[in-house]
Parts: sequence; C-alpha cells; structure tokens
Amino acid sequence: MRLSEVKSPRDLDGLSYEELEDLAKQLREEIVSTVSKRGGHLASNLGVVELTIALHRVFNMPTDKLVFDVGHQCYAHKLLTGRYSQFHTLRSFGGLAGFPKRNESAFDVYETGHSSTAISAALGMARARDALGGTEHVIALVGDGALTGGMCYEALNDAGSNKTRLIVIVNDNEMSISQNVGALSRHLTDLRVSKGWTSAKGHVVSGLERLPGLGRPLYRVIHRGLGFVKSLFIDEGFFTSLGFQYYGPIDGHDIRKLEHTLQRASQLKGPTVIHVATRKGYGYQPAEDRPEAFHGTPPFYVETGDMRKRSDLPSYGDVMAEELCALMGQDRRLVAVTAAMLSGTGLQEIAKRLPDRVYDVGIAEEHAASMAAGMAARGLKPYFAVYASFFQRAYDQMIEDVCLQGLPVTFLIDRAGLVGEDGATHHGVFDLASMLPVPGLTILAPRDIHQLRAMLRFSAGFEHPLAIRYGRSSVDLSARCPVKGDYQPGVWERLEEGNDCAILAVGSMVAEALQTRDLLLKEGIEAAVVDCASVKPLDETMLKRLSDRPLVTMEEHLLTGGFGQYVGAFCAREGLPAPAVSFGIPEMFVQHGGRRQLMRYLSLTPETMARRISVALREGKSNGGQETR
Amino acid sequence: MRLSEVKSPRDLDGLSYEELEDLAKQLREEIVSTVSKRGGHLASNLGVVELTIALHRVFNMPTDKLVFDVGHQCYAHKLLTGRYSQFHTLRSFGGLAGFPKRNESAFDVYETGHSSTAISAALGMARARDALGGTEHVIALVGDGALTGGMCYEALNDAGSNKTRLIVIVNDNEMSISQNVGALSRHLTDLRVSKGWTSAKGHVVSGLERLPGLGRPLYRVIHRGLGFVKSLFIDEGFFTSLGFQYYGPIDGHDIRKLEHTLQRASQLKGPTVIHVATRKGYGYQPAEDRPEAFHGTPPFYVETGDMRKRSDLPSYGDVMAEELCALMGQDRRLVAVTAAMLSGTGLQEIAKRLPDRVYDVGIAEEHAASMAAGMAARGLKPYFAVYASFFQRAYDQMIEDVCLQGLPVTFLIDRAGLVGEDGATHHGVFDLASMLPVPGLTILAPRDIHQLRAMLRFSAGFEHPLAIRYGRSSVDLSARCPVKGDYQPGVWERLEEGNDCAILAVGSMVAEALQTRDLLLKEGIEAAVVDCASVKPLDETMLKRLSDRPLVTMEEHLLTGGFGQYVGAFCAREGLPAPAVSFGIPEMFVQHGGRRQLMRYLSLTPETMARRISVALREGKSNGGQETR
Repeated sequence: MRLSEVKSPRDLDGLSYEELEDLAKQLREEIVSTVSKRGGHLASNLGVVELTIALHRVFNMPTDKLVFDVGHQCYAHKLLTGRYSQFHTLRSFGGLAGFPKRNESAFDVYETGHSSTAISAALGMARARDALGGTEHVIALVGDGALTGGMCYEALNDAGSNKTRLIVIVNDNEMSISQNVGALSRHLTDLRVSKGWTSAKGHVVSGLERLPGLGRPLYRVIHRGLGFVKSLFIDEGFFTSLGFQYYGPIDGHDIRKLEHTLQRASQLKGPTVIHVATRKGYGYQPAEDRPEAFHGTPPFYVETGDMRKRSDLPSYGDVMAEELCALMGQDRRLVAVTAAMLSGTGLQEIAKRLPDRVYDVGIAEEHAASMAAGMAARGLKPYFAVYASFFQRAYDQMIEDVCLQGLPVTFLIDRAGLVGEDGATHHGVFDLASMLPVPGLTILAPRDIHQLRAMLRFSAGFEHPLAIRYGRSSVDLSARCPVKGDYQPGVWERLEEGNDCAILAVGSMVAEALQTRDLLLKEGIEAAVVDCASVKPLDETMLKRLSDRPLVTMEEHLLTGGFGQYVGAFCAREGLPAPAVSFGIPEMFVQHGGRRQLMRYLSLTPETMARRISVALREGKSNGGQETR
Repeated sequence: MRLSEVKSPRDLDGLSYEELEDLAKQLREEIVSTVSKRGGHLASNLGVVELTIALHRVFNMPTDKLVFDVGHQCYAHKLLTGRYSQFHTLRSFGGLAGFPKRNESAFDVYETGHSSTAISAALGMARARDALGGTEHVIALVGDGALTGGMCYEALNDAGSNKTRLIVIVNDNEMSISQNVGALSRHLTDLRVSKGWTSAKGHVVSGLERLPGLGRPLYRVIHRGLGFVKSLFIDEGFFTSLGFQYYGPIDGHDIRKLEHTLQRASQLKGPTVIHVATRKGYGYQPAEDRPEAFHGTPPFYVETGDMRKRSDLPSYGDVMAEELCALMGQDRRLVAVTAAMLSGTGLQEIAKRLPDRVYDVGIAEEHAASMAAGMAARGLKPYFAVYASFFQRAYDQMIEDVCLQGLPVTFLIDRAGLVGEDGATHHGVFDLASMLPVPGLTILAPRDIHQLRAMLRFSAGFEHPLAIRYGRSSVDLSARCPVKGDYQPGVWERLEEGNDCAILAVGSMVAEALQTRDLLLKEGIEAAVVDCASVKPLDETMLKRLSDRPLVTMEEHLLTGGFGQYVGAFCAREGLPAPAVSFGIPEMFVQHGGRRQLMRYLSLTPETMARRISVALREGKSNGGQETR
C-alpha cells in the first residue's frame, strides 16, 4: 500500500506485517525528505515510526486518545491520519505544525511542545472518561528524557494511587535531546541489562526469549497470563513503587511484538507502563550516528546529512559559550547549568573544555533554578542557560529562590522573541512580563553579539540576580554602531540622534529600529534611536530628557506586560507623555512560520513600522496602539 | 538546662539524653505557647523537635548546612540558634519570621516557603562545597508530603546520578498539609509495614528489633556495617532506583537513635536518604488529634485547642465551596482539583459531599493544571482551587496547556494579595502580572462574597479559560452595594457617582475605595467608585466615559504588571490621559505582619489614599506614582 493512499488509520487494518514494514519504510522516506527541506525534529520522529503504526493498529483513534509528550514525535501520526497531502507544508507559515494541533485534526487530542505534560493530560482524560461514562483507552507516549521532568513524577504518583485505567508508553531511546541525565536513565538501562535486553542486527531481543530452552513457550505465557510471570517481568522498583503495572522492555522497531504487547495492555485494568526500547534516528544513518544534531535540525542534504548553511554569523549561544568559558577560566566561582539543552544553548562547547563546571540536570527547569540558587548561597556564581519559553517552568523558583534571596544567579535566556518554525509553544514572548515585576532582578537584552560579550563581562562582577535575554537569530551591528567600553545597567546608548521622535528599542529590535530610522529619514523624519539594552532598570535620566519628543517603543515581546508598558508606567508616574506608538506582539498566540514572515504578519517590519510612525507623527496623536492584521 | 540559656546549638553538647528530653519538652511548651498567641504552623513544628535537637547535636551548624523544605518546621531550630528571646515576636510585623530568613541568622542558610525545593538547594550547596574545596555536610529536611512535588524528584534524579555527598532526611509524618496523597505515600507506608514499623506508646520500633532473637545484636550491626545487612535495611525500590543509599525508618522522637543514625550517615560518601518517622503535633494532644487543623493555625486556647474566633463572616473558600458544590449538583461535568490544599481552599466541604468529584493530586501544581486541561479536553469542566503564590508553580501550564488550547479550566485563586503573617513567600502579588499578558484568559476579582457567588454561577456556563482571584480576608458589602443580577465579564459596576475623580478598584480594594470616597467627601471631593471586577477584559466603554475626570486605580498587587498599568496601557493606546494616581504595592518583597499593618506600611489605608488623592487633585498633576515609606 502506498502511504499516499492512507486516508485514515483504519486503512492499515488489513495489512500484513510485511506490508506494514514497507509502510514504515515509506514513512521514513517521507519524513526524511520533508525535514531535509523544511527542518524539524528528525531523530525523535524516525524512532517512533513502528510504534506509531502499532498504536494506530491496536487502538481506535481518535475515540481512543493518544497524547504525545513534547509532541516532537508526531510526524508519522500526522502522515497516517489524513495529512499526507499537506505534509510538505510542515512548519511553514499557514502549513502543518511540527507539533500536535487540535485545530488540524481530531486525531490531535492534546497540544504539547513543552516536556513532561502527557501523563498529566492523559490522566485528566482518563478521569474525565470515567466520570462521563466512557470506555475508550487513553495512552500517553513519553520519552525517557521527559521522565527527568518532575511533572511526570507528580502525574505517575497521582495516577499510581488510584485505579484509573491508563497506558503510559515509555519510549526509551537512551537520550532526551542531549545525552540523557540522571539516575532514572541509569535505572532504565539497568532494567534492559538485567532482563537480557541486547541488540542484534539493531533489534531488541526480550529477556525471556534468550533463556535457553525457555524462550518461545514462556514468551507466549507472558502474553497470556501476565500475573504468572510477574516476578520475572514486572519491575519491582521504580514504576511499581509508584503503583503502576510494568511491562517491558519491548523492541520498539518490531511491529508484531509491539502489537501483541499493546493488545494485552489494552485488556488490563489500572495504570500500566509499557517500556519500549527504540533508537533515535532509526533507519537514517546520519541521524542514527548523530541523533543530537538531528533532534531539531535545519534543512540538510539527504545524501550526506550535512546541514544546509544558514548564516556565517556565530549564534548567540556560540558567542555566549566562548565568552563565558573565558570568564570561567578567570574565576573558579563561575559555573554553568542547563536543563537538557547543552547543545541548543551553546554550553556543550564549555562542557568540552570544563566538564566539571557545567551541570546538565535533565529536563528540570524548576530544579535547575533552585539548584543554582543553592550554589549561589554557598559561594558559586551560576549561569543558568535556558530557552525563554522553557524558562516559564522556573517562574516560581526565579521569584522565590533567586530574587527573594537576592542571590547572584544569572539567567541566560536564549530563544527570546519569535523562534519561527517551532511555533506557539516555543516563542519566548512572556519572559519580560514575568520578570519585570520581580523586585531586585536586573534585566538586560543585547542588541548584538558584541554587546552580549560586554554584558557577560559585566555580569562576572555583579552579585545580584540578573537576566540576559537574546533571540534565536544573532545580529552583528559592529559596522554601524560598535560596542565600546564596559557595559553598565541603567544606562542607555543613543545610537542615532534625531529630534522628530525617539525610538526606544530592546534587543533584537535595535537592528529593526535602525532600519526604520533610515526609512523615516527618506521622508525627512529624523528619529533618534536608543538602545534600551537595560530593560530594567530604565535609564530614567535619558528617558526624561527624550520626553520632549514623541517616544516610540519596540520590542519582540507581547505588548501587555512588556517594555513599552513599563516605560509607559514610568512616564505616567513622572507626568510625562505616554509613548506615541508601542510596537510589539498584540494579544494572540503567534503560530509557526519563518521569523521574517511572522514579523511581517505582525506588522513589525521596518517598512510597516516606519509607515506607522510617520502617520502617528503627522496626526500628532498620542499612542494609537498597534493594529493586528 | 533552661531553654532560655541555650545561646547556640553547641550549648547542647554536654547534655545527657535525659536533659535533652527535658529540653524537647521545654521547646514544645514554648512553641505551643507562642503559637497559641501568634498563630503559626504548629503540628509540623511539634513533629520535628527531637529531630532538630539531634541534627544540631550531630552536625556543626552553620558550617554544616541545614535546608528546611517549606520551612514551616523551623521553630525549634530558631529557638536553639540564639533566637529564644525574640521568639515571642514570631510572625509579627518586624518580628521573627515563621520561615527561615537569611537576614535573621547565619543558621538560616536558605529561605523557603514553597514546597519541594530543599533537595535542589542542598544539592547546589553540596556541589558548591565540592567546587570550592569545602568539607561540610549539607542536609535537606523534607516532609513526605513535599515529596509529592515533582521538583524533589528532579533533584533526587540529578543527585542520585552523581556521587555528591548529601543527606536527605525524609520526615515521614504520613501527611502533608491535608491527608497525604499518592502512590509514594503508600510506598512509604509499605516500607514501614514491611519492616515491622509499629507504634507502641507512640514510639516507633525499628523492624529488626522486633525479629525474635535477632533484635538487639542485629540492630547494632546495622549501625556498624551497613553494607552487611543491605538486603534487609536498604530499600531496593524507590530511593535506590534513583541512586540513593537508603536508611530507615528511624523513630523520629528518639533522640538517641536519631543521633546514632545521623552520625553514621555523616560518615558515608554519596547521596543518602534517611527515612524518619514522626508524628505531626507530637506532644500536644489537640494537635495530634487534629494535625490538619493545627497545620497553620490562628491563635487558640492552649487548654482546649479551640481556635480564637476571628470573624463571623464565612471565608471566601467557604463561600466558594458552598456555591460550587451547588453548581456541581446541577452539572456533572463540573469537578474540583486541589494540590494538597483541600482544607485551606475550602474544597474539603465539597469532598465530604461529593468525594468522587474532588481530586487532590498532592503538592503538584504543575500536574494539577495540566491534569485539569486534560479533563477539559475530554469534556469535564474542572475548577482548580489554589493559593495565588503557589499558583506561580503552574505558570507555564496555565499558559501552554490551558490558555493556548483555550480549554474551559477555571482557576480559583485564593490568598491573592497580602496574606499577612506568612510573609514574603506567601503574598499573592504576582498573579495579575503573570496572567494579564496571556491571550484568551478572562480574569475576575470579586469585591465581596456575594459577587464571588455570582461569578461562580457565571463560570458554570463559560467555556473558556477563566481565573477568579480573591483574598484571605472575606468581605461583605451587601449593606452598601448589594450584588444584583447575573455576573458578566467586561462590564464594570459604578457603585458611587462623582465627578471630581473616578476610583477604579479591584477585588479587595473596592471596600477600601468606598471608605476612601467617604473620607474624600468630607473634604468636598466627590469621587466615583467603580468596581472593576472584570480585570480582563476591561470595560472599555466605561473607561472611556470616565476619562473626563482624573482616574485613580487601586489594587492589592504589585504596581508593575498589574491592573493600573494595564489600564494605563489602554489609555495610552486610546490617547486618553494616564491614571492620575495608581495605588498598589511598590517594587519590594513585602515581609510578614498583620495585613492591616502591612497596608499601613504600604500607605494603602483609606486615610493615606484619600490624602494622596486629595493632594494630587489639588495639584492637578498627573500620576505622581506612589511613594514607599
């Protein structure tokens, strides 16, 4: 059967295992081909092709509910649930999302993007089913990496204490995004080893099959009367101490075995864990060889696995790592912390050189922040590098553990602003609103890679809570406005003079502000451009001085709770006129697409902003807000 | 030795166990007596008296570091570390805090208030020690209830995967704040049972002692060569699967046994869990009988344990529970969720009548929010009742799981605003700033108990994300402005007319605004008073109409990111004048004290606010901000 002919999972019902294996091959080809053009999550998706087929064969989606943890493994699911013909639009503006989306398909029952939520959501669905008298199955598909997130444990603990029928599939590929971290990972490995898990021709052989003489017959017994071999097959440790029935490990690339196990599990009462062993990147050699590089990948050449070149400029993460590593060489108090994002944040480069001073704590932002606070309380100076949207997980700890105690923890907030193709769950557009109200937190946003270096050098001697926010796309403004001297918070830099208005720009928007100024100049409007790298504290002196002309604010962040509003509150308090125009993101969840496309969609290009400013100045009217298309 | 003579823990060094037991008695008397006058956390503090003594005897604080989880069990610690003479000021304004405070004593090495952070912090300290070449011990004291929080697991997982020397004491009192929840709790109970834990005269007998013929000799062996009896004494399950050495359970009221175990544990390498069994409220019968009532207690009569009467008015939680329970009777889709706060939120009353429809998930706000989202995705209509400051833990899930999917989850946010004596970690003053930017979230704040009822009735038919925020002190304004008709968001109510200015007040501040109006009237100033119960959406029509006079905003929340700033942003966008005065909390962490005292301190009483408004109107000046004393 051709993959293109699969309109619904029920089309798989009559297929033989040979045909299913062929389908798996087609799925892999389609995924590799599309991701090579569009970028996306490759290794995780290739790992679950057979598992996805087996799940759709055994269960009756969408009546039965399948919840993906993180959601970066739903491509095969999308291809099997009527979205083959749109799959080429993956991650593009207006196209299919890279994560489950309820408005895309009834088969996407729950949206994810952040880790470790699936068991919670599935338990909620299972409880709702029972409360409303339903009978369907609810399945959570969770990677072993996601299990390092505390939420999973909260959910397992809650689910294990009641008899709610629920299936949790632990997709154990021995790594989360970077090398898996922590004791649980080792525990899963122990399970594999102790049960004779081993790899032959890339396949997994389940333990009992390998017992001489016993293999086959007992294998059948397992799947008939599971209670009978409980002591052999059900782990008495981690999962069972939490009240779950445990089965596994199962070869995650053997559709027949997967189906058998899922079928039996579907007949059980109560919460059940099925431990499935898969291989990230399975079936595409470059991804098998370098699964971390192919976790979230830009477009690449299928033949070689080489990434297509995107930019000559080093990323903010690269620059941060280089500068921080140098500073660490000078001060042994400096250490770095990451929550399973060694590679994405750039810390991997430091880890290579100073392995003892980089702490990867797993997908555990809450713990990372409090652990860093503990380090700081005992005399270290930790840097927690984290993506802006995942930093939302450490919101309480940022306030209570770091800022309330005034501890010198530095948050290096990467991927702030619009991240592009990963979409709504990954945009970093709430961070300023979450941080600005917090007493004692200094917030900086560099205009380019050189200012980031200067800020890091400043931070090394700063003994208070600090956040430095930067985006996914790095910028180099040295040709137009080179960074000079030491960095100092509370002082803004006037990059361009102009009396017709003053543009107050934060971080990524400084470059846009400069372009906007150039366009305004053609109309005879002279706009001052101010780099408001110190988001908090404001440069109150300069702000007052600039208030003799209309103010314009620019930020890559939601307008509500953001920089413009913070400036506005200061102006109100001081009796100064409110900013005439504030540019930022209006109240909406911005979906996926190229960053430039999204900026256009949000009317945040230099062209549209120049037009808006020009109109506002002509009309002499006060802040007209920003229109959304 | 008199407790009053203990100036430092080292004063305990020479005491006999008889003297220590006498000291424990004195500590209990002092704690019961002080809490009976000041209110506070009683049951948890009484439970750890002997454990605290043993810890200070075996370890050399503050060189050795003791981190309290939550911190509601630090009273004996405070009394033994030089704070006896100030102990009568406990929880009062300017007095000792009810939680560890670094600025109070060098013995308070880490501040807590929210649950489940201690292992993370302690691991950070231990890593810092190793990085900086220290040798001290780091001990985390964690209640079994706190172990339902996912952060603990993140930290255990991280700690267990390396060899960092660290002692985690699990204080197992079989309950967190309300009856303990979850599988782990049952697992701990299993451990007790399987090892012969039993209570005789309120004491705990360790397992091996009860084995006939073996007891004493083997007991000694345990403490000499732990490896020898590993299979008997070290649990092979939960903690060891996470990489910890495990010892216990130990009788937490036997100082001698505790000291022995702690001494041995202090000689071990690597991460170690000591499982200590204690009894909440131990030594004070009313607290032993009703530990939940004596968790956080108002002042009470020592002889009877009866609480001193505080108010005739039912609390917001009581009213919420009554109304919600009635609504649940009419619609089976409605369910309630709590994170270990059955009693504090009022849900206990519903649980008594509809036990199957109230879900207590443990101290697990993250899970609670996503679980509720899962419920809503499958057709239920969940209400998650949570304290405002603990809701900070579910910030990411509120955004990503509930609001991004637009699911009909209602957050019932209790203890919003200043909570009084519990202080900085418990004030609910960040919630509006965290919620206002989130697309699609409706935010309400009732002015009194009657409006809360009306809002709940409205909520039952509302199919979108919703938050209802109310404070610790309930209000009844029915005599002055009775609630009429159905509640509708986006519509404000004008409670008093007046053309000299318009006071826009939110929630608890409506009552203060009415009093402020009365005071202004004596000066001939007629102020309109508007109940802005719909924080979001704003009543834009009314706001525009009122803009012909100076606007004043009032909220019990931080000024930055709050309601006043949100109104100001709207005014700027619409070209209306900014609010003339905004009342709220300036940028500071507000410490503990009576709520009225704190409001005075913050210049938020009707008297000071009337004065400020009157001056502002006289000077005709724009928003002069709010001064902090």
